[in-house]
Amino acid sequence: MRLLGKREPDVYGTETLEEVETRVGETAASLGAAVEFFQSNHEGDIVDKIGDAIGEYDGIVINPAAFTHTSVAIRDAVAAVDIPTIEVHLSNIHSREEFRKSSVTAPACVGQICGFGILGYEMAVRVLAKERVPAGK
Amino acid sequence: MRLLGKREPDVYGTETLEEVETRVGETAASLGAAVEFFQSNHEGDIVDKIGDAIGEYDGIVINPAAFTHTSVAIRDAVAAVDIPTIEVHLSNIHSREEFRKSSVTAPACVGQICGFGILGYEMAVRVLAKERVPAGK
Amino acid sequence: MRLLGKREPDVYGTETLEEVETRVGETAASLGAAVEFFQSNHEGDIVDKIGDAIGEYDGIVINPAAFTHTSVAIRDAVAAVDIPTIEVHLSNIHSREEFRKSSVTAPACVGQICGFGILGYEMAVRVLAKERVPAGK
Amino acid sequence: MRLLGKREPDVYGTETLEEVETRVGETAASLGAAVEFFQSNHEGDIVDKIGDAIGEYDGIVINPAAFTHTSVAIRDAVAAVDIPTIEVHLSNIHSREEFRKSSVTAPACVGQICGFGILGYEMAVRVLAKERVPAGK
Amino acid sequence: MRLLGKREPDVYGTETLEEVETRVGETAASLGAAVEFFQSNHEGDIVDKIGDAIGEYDGIVINPAAFTHTSVAIRDAVAAVDIPTIEVHLSNIHSREEFRKSSVTAPACVGQICGFGILGYEMAVRVLAKERVPAGK
Amino acid sequence: MRLLGKREPDVYGTETLEEVETRVGETAASLGAAVEFFQSNHEGDIVDKIGDAIGEYDGIVINPAAFTHTSVAIRDAVAAVDIPTIEVHLSNIHSREEFRKSSVTAPACVGQICGFGILGYEMAVRVLAKERVPAGK
Amino acid sequence: MRLLGKREPDVYGTETLEEVETRVGETAASLGAAVEFFQSNHEGDIVDKIGDAIGEYDGIVINPAAFTHTSVAIRDAVAAVDIPTIEVHLSNIHSREEFRKSSVTAPACVGQICGFGILGYEMAVRVLAKERVPAGK
Amino acid sequence: MRLLGKREPDVYGTETLEEVETRVGETAASLGAAVEFFQSNHEGDIVDKIGDAIGEYDGIVINPAAFTHTSVAIRDAVAAVDIPTIEVHLSNIHSREEFRKSSVTAPACVGQICGFGILGYEMAVRVLAKERVPAGK
Amino acid sequence: MRLLGKREPDVYGTETLEEVETRVGETAASLGAAVEFFQSNHEGDIVDKIGDAIGEYDGIVINPAAFTHTSVAIRDAVAAVDIPTIEVHLSNIHSREEFRKSSVTAPACVGQICGFGILGYEMAVRVLAKERVPAGK
Amino acid sequence: MRLLGKREPDVYGTETLEEVETRVGETAASLGAAVEFFQSNHEGDIVDKIGDAIGEYDGIVINPAAFTHTSVAIRDAVAAVDIPTIEVHLSNIHSREEFRKSSVTAPACVGQICGFGILGYEMAVRVLAKERVPAGK
Amino acid sequence: MRLLGKREPDVYGTETLEEVETRVGETAASLGAAVEFFQSNHEGDIVDKIGDAIGEYDGIVINPAAFTHTSVAIRDAVAAVDIPTIEVHLSNIHSREEFRKSSVTAPACVGQICGFGILGYEMAVRVLAKERVPAGK
Amino acid sequence: MRLLGKREPDVYGTETLEEVETRVGETAASLGAAVEFFQSNHEGDIVDKIGDAIGEYDGIVINPAAFTHTSVAIRDAVAAVDIPTIEVHLSNIHSREEFRKSSVTAPACVGQICGFGILGYEMAVRVLAKERVPAGK
Repeated sequence: MRLLGKREPDVYGTETLEEVETRVGETAASLGAAVEFFQSNHEGDIVDKIGDAIGEYDGIVINPAAFTHTSVAIRDAVAAVDIPTIEVHLSNIHSREEFRKSSVTAPACVGQICGFGILGYEMAVRVLAKERVPAGK
Repeated sequence: MRLLGKREPDVYGTETLEEVETRVGETAASLGAAVEFFQSNHEGDIVDKIGDAIGEYDGIVINPAAFTHTSVAIRDAVAAVDIPTIEVHLSNIHSREEFRKSSVTAPACVGQICGFGILGYEMAVRVLAKERVPAGK
Repeated sequence: MRLLGKREPDVYGTETLEEVETRVGETAASLGAAVEFFQSNHEGDIVDKIGDAIGEYDGIVINPAAFTHTSVAIRDAVAAVDIPTIEVHLSNIHSREEFRKSSVTAPACVGQICGFGILGYEMAVRVLAKERVPAGK
Repeated sequence: MRLLGKREPDVYGTETLEEVETRVGETAASLGAAVEFFQSNHEGDIVDKIGDAIGEYDGIVINPAAFTHTSVAIRDAVAAVDIPTIEVHLSNIHSREEFRKSSVTAPACVGQICGFGILGYEMAVRVLAKERVPAGK
Repeated sequence: MRLLGKREPDVYGTETLEEVETRVGETAASLGAAVEFFQSNHEGDIVDKIGDAIGEYDGIVINPAAFTHTSVAIRDAVAAVDIPTIEVHLSNIHSREEFRKSSVTAPACVGQICGFGILGYEMAVRVLAKERVPAGK
Repeated sequence: MRLLGKREPDVYGTETLEEVETRVGETAASLGAAVEFFQSNHEGDIVDKIGDAIGEYDGIVINPAAFTHTSVAIRDAVAAVDIPTIEVHLSNIHSREEFRKSSVTAPACVGQICGFGILGYEMAVRVLAKERVPAGK
Repeated sequence: MRLLGKREPDVYGTETLEEVETRVGETAASLGAAVEFFQSNHEGDIVDKIGDAIGEYDGIVINPAAFTHTSVAIRDAVAAVDIPTIEVHLSNIHSREEFRKSSVTAPACVGQICGFGILGYEMAVRVLAKERVPAGK
Repeated sequence: MRLLGKREPDVYGTETLEEVETRVGETAASLGAAVEFFQSNHEGDIVDKIGDAIGEYDGIVINPAAFTHTSVAIRDAVAAVDIPTIEVHLSNIHSREEFRKSSVTAPACVGQICGFGILGYEMAVRVLAKERVPAGK
Repeated sequence: MRLLGKREPDVYGTETLEEVETRVGETAASLGAAVEFFQSNHEGDIVDKIGDAIGEYDGIVINPAAFTHTSVAIRDAVAAVDIPTIEVHLSNIHSREEFRKSSVTAPACVGQICGFGILGYEMAVRVLAKERVPAGK
Repeated sequence: MRLLGKREPDVYGTETLEEVETRVGETAASLGAAVEFFQSNHEGDIVDKIGDAIGEYDGIVINPAAFTHTSVAIRDAVAAVDIPTIEVHLSNIHSREEFRKSSVTAPACVGQICGFGILGYEMAVRVLAKERVPAGK
Repeated sequence: MRLLGKREPDVYGTETLEEVETRVGETAASLGAAVEFFQSNHEGDIVDKIGDAIGEYDGIVINPAAFTHTSVAIRDAVAAVDIPTIEVHLSNIHSREEFRKSSVTAPACVGQICGFGILGYEMAVRVLAKERVPAGK
Repeated sequence: MRLLGKREPDVYGTETLEEVETRVGETAASLGAAVEFFQSNHEGDIVDKIGDAIGEYDGIVINPAAFTHTSVAIRDAVAAVDIPTIEVHLSNIHSREEFRKSSVTAPACVGQICGFGILGYEMAVRVLAKERVPAGK
């Protein structure tokens, strides 16, 4: 299991990013699961990482940030690997600009969680670690 | 705290509805919280119930089902009561018909959880019972 | 079998509503079928009535009137009960205002009849009473 | 009276087309009416046939098939002849692709029947043979 | 004459609602007219109330609130009863969210007043009590 | 206070225009207020007049007629002068052509009154003369 | 030179069609030009006729009627033959249904005349007979 | 009769404008009619001129140029004066930018002529001088 | 196997059409296949020809030209016959007018080839003659 | 060279307008250029001024303000005079209301500068005074 | 010559990718041409590779996969290098989701081939190796 | 200060790119400022570079080229770093294809300059070096 695309280093700073990893890692550990973190501003790196996930991870938690609204490539990658994937957004995307309300990537995911800040990552990890979630949408 | 609008009695049957209430109630109880359930096919009843929630509940978990896509009245009611509200959908609304992808009611909520079935109600209850969630969006 | 949503009491008057019931009832009786009438201006009542139809009726004739163009709730209710449902409109919805040309509810029905006035109800009853119509769309 | 545009020879085969004509013809005969059949893949032939109907027929049952969604010519022809015309579709056009939900030709007709297969032709013939239907929309 | 749909109890509180009724009632009384108040979150109740108005009232002042933007049912009810109806909005709907700028119900009314708060109700009552307003649009 | 843009001389004739001025002027006088009239078919003149209103008038009643649907210039002028402005339309703009239903200028006004003919001017004058209306929207 | 697509036999009757031909023919003759008439409800016949016009005619007057709004084939045919073509409509297409306001075929023509009834044909013939009109648009 | 809005002085130069007036004036004279010319870049002047036309002219030939696509004011003015008005465009508006294909002003005119350069003015004058054209659309 | 709808005789001339047939025929012959040519400006003829193809041909190469963007009838015909069909366009439809970029007929075909001129026909014939292409899309 | 349409006197006051003229004039003078100022709320005056610019000025700096989003007339005037024109906006039009993001007039200009306040005028004057800018777009 | 963007490693596996390269390479070799393969999930890498192609390759075969529908960057790169480029899609993009039907990149290519699986690559290579294809669109 | 995304190496060649850097660098030096250049075809590299700019640069001049119309990621990066950013386009984006007229990235910038070629970079550098420009929009 891993976290992809936590793309707000500018908003939260390096330490906060560490804290996020610590907090989410502890949540996972308490459930007997291990979590690997991955952050990139490169759509291609995210697609590669998803492609490499086959046989390596039991689930993916992804925050595609800006790519949520534009990336058919990430959508197709998630659809191709057939690993349960949960989309997380820190803010409630439905109460922001019009173009942020629709998600190009969510149709390929199991589900979506938005509006709960970093807690959303923990909620997603908890679902993947404790539940039998079917892959695909 | 309470559950509004669990509107699929036809899909899950009466017993399942009871089971949902039992399961979600136990989750709440384990967190030291009490939960009240409310189900109606009447938009007006849901609006009334939300309006009566002031001073009665610390949070609202709502599944507006079909009203998600049409009800400005429920949206305005949630915005008016200023109680932390979480929107839950059993299915991933992003992988269904086009008109089900947008939510009229979500902009007034704290956040949205979709795609995890009944587990979504428990996730929402957990957030409201354990976290300090600010009201409004 | 029953008639839902004959919602023009203001147009046809109370007596005419009775006459409609008499005329449609006689048509049904002549086919060896019984018909129950239901009329409401409450979307929720119509949804409840549809939900209660399981095991009670062999078919539903529905005129959602204004709800035709807005009610996802009625659509989902018809889709859920899995009883052959026929949508009837008194007028030809294709020759009225633009927004009246599309039907939110029809995709969940077996078929649609419009433009023949009260005769449309009798046509629908005749189909349900004499034919083997599969449920759903 | 006649049947225009029964355009699915590939779907039903020649014999079935004959059977359709037999079945609909018998329905008409039982009502003391005669029916003439016409089938063409040529929009112009259909327009010509409608234009020639003045003084020849008391009503028109038309299934414009694919032309339903594109033919302003057929719409204008129906509007011009001032003979009661009923549009019939074998399938429920509201539960198919988006572009099949709207009808260019229906605004010029008295009414529309869809979703009941070949039975729809009989229903339309019955209306024209037994009722006093005003021409135009 | 009566006031329908003063739907912001959460915004103005119970007492204010009383005050509104007092203030509007006094305005009506000063014009030699009587006014009846009606408030409901149920679209169906509002439709029923409008339907019952025939022969009972000389005019209707309606604030459809959230239903302004969605309710074809209220529009059709107003159009059907043929009683002069004035639509009132407390706020200026043209300076809010895009979807609040258009009114589904206004085309069936005589006119619309928006942006003057409670004063709008008094203005509407004054028009109905002192002027000869034709019914319908 | 003044009336801008009463632009239907062709509809009401010169005398009627005078009558309108007399009637509205008397209404204002009865409230202890003075009113100045201004009518022009030139968008630029209307913008100039609004720009000159600062420090001269306590309120503006404007009927932008055709400019309602096109003039960003008048909208910006009203927003700039910060004087309470009320938009009036003689007819109910919601029951006319589609393009007349939206107002470019209304978002900069305090409120809008439509559908009551010349009475609308008097209603607007009354509001400005008797009430404490805040400027802007 | 010839007239294509005078497609309202139902509106004007056979004799009127003859009269049109007489009247337009006399106008052409008075200008020293000959005119050939062609009328068809078949889009393909019209396309064939246009294709055959090369080297045969000096100009084309076309009333594509219903095809105006749908026929890319006629547009492409006119563009291909490189003969000055004038589009004529009996009615003012700008004051009819929304879909009749745009012309698919006009971009390939030299110009368009609409709203003058049969006179429009004569105006077009006069232009082609007396002026040096460049081919294409 | 007069010509309004020949607004391309920059394209044709002052002399050409004179030539246009000479050419069109001679055409009118040969038909026993007099013509007055008016050119302005001011929408308001054009509206005023149209408003003043009542009782002065038997017809109006107008080339609203850029205002064609934006001016509701000119449209309403033409509709108000009830004098037969013909819209002329020098170029074929259907073969230019998308926004030039639709005319805001044409629905209020008797008809439209486009694509024939200055000849279009003469064609319009000829129609007004020789034919009995009804006012309005 | 055959070629339908090579509809640019005006662009390529009769001889070129012959040359096309020669060139494509030789390509087919070199692959041990025979090819029949069919060209028509009549949508109905093309639909008929497709309908007659069952049991006669192993594949269809079609260039619907202008019908590409409008003909639901051809689309439905191709979908009905269940014979592998390849859509060919001489030019690159993606670098022309906006309305030429979408194809109504392609969804019913196996694939599409555009931009290679006459070579496209040969490429399509080669695919059908040498490969095992499944029917339908 | 001149400045057209500095249309915010209400925002900046008379003195500021003088200051703007002083500041921009000095910038021009330092580059050996002279500048003339022009401000009007009348679209027609602006069009006239642009039309008169031929042979008088070497360049035009224009801030069409509200007309930016509506004036085809100014666009056509700029395109007609063939003098290098630069469009300036005080604010960043891309971070305001949706309708302010697109410019009707910019396609006829050499370029656009927005978001730098009064400095934008100086930047534009500097470009026109020091560079060889080709006319038109 | 080379193959860009064969982006479905997850669909076809590493070995299949090799097989594709072998099969396409052999096709090229049989035509006396050499082919170089390039695959990347990074839009930037693809743009770089296209930019580096000048003087290196005689043609480009590109399958932009998900980037087909979003990448203006790839479109601009293809347009800039002026090397004949053919777009290939394994599936028929016209029979998939609505957003997959339009191609952002195709307007810059010579042509497009879709729906023939890996065979499409060979068809494209064959065109580039044997034909004189002009660069650009 | 630095220049991001000067992405037309294929248009201007390596030397020209050097020349651009020389010219812009000299302009900056003459103002006592230093400038760093950065060019990449990788959206992710551009986002990284913007993210690294905090505390390193006083301003950013960015030409997002093709990404202007698609990159929410660059927009969010600019909004996050809170450094004055100016968007520059070599050509006038308003006189090109429709999709190039809107900018996804500009709302996060201070302003935008387009249409002046390389001079635009110098204008932007001058603004940042000499003026006190506030960050953000």
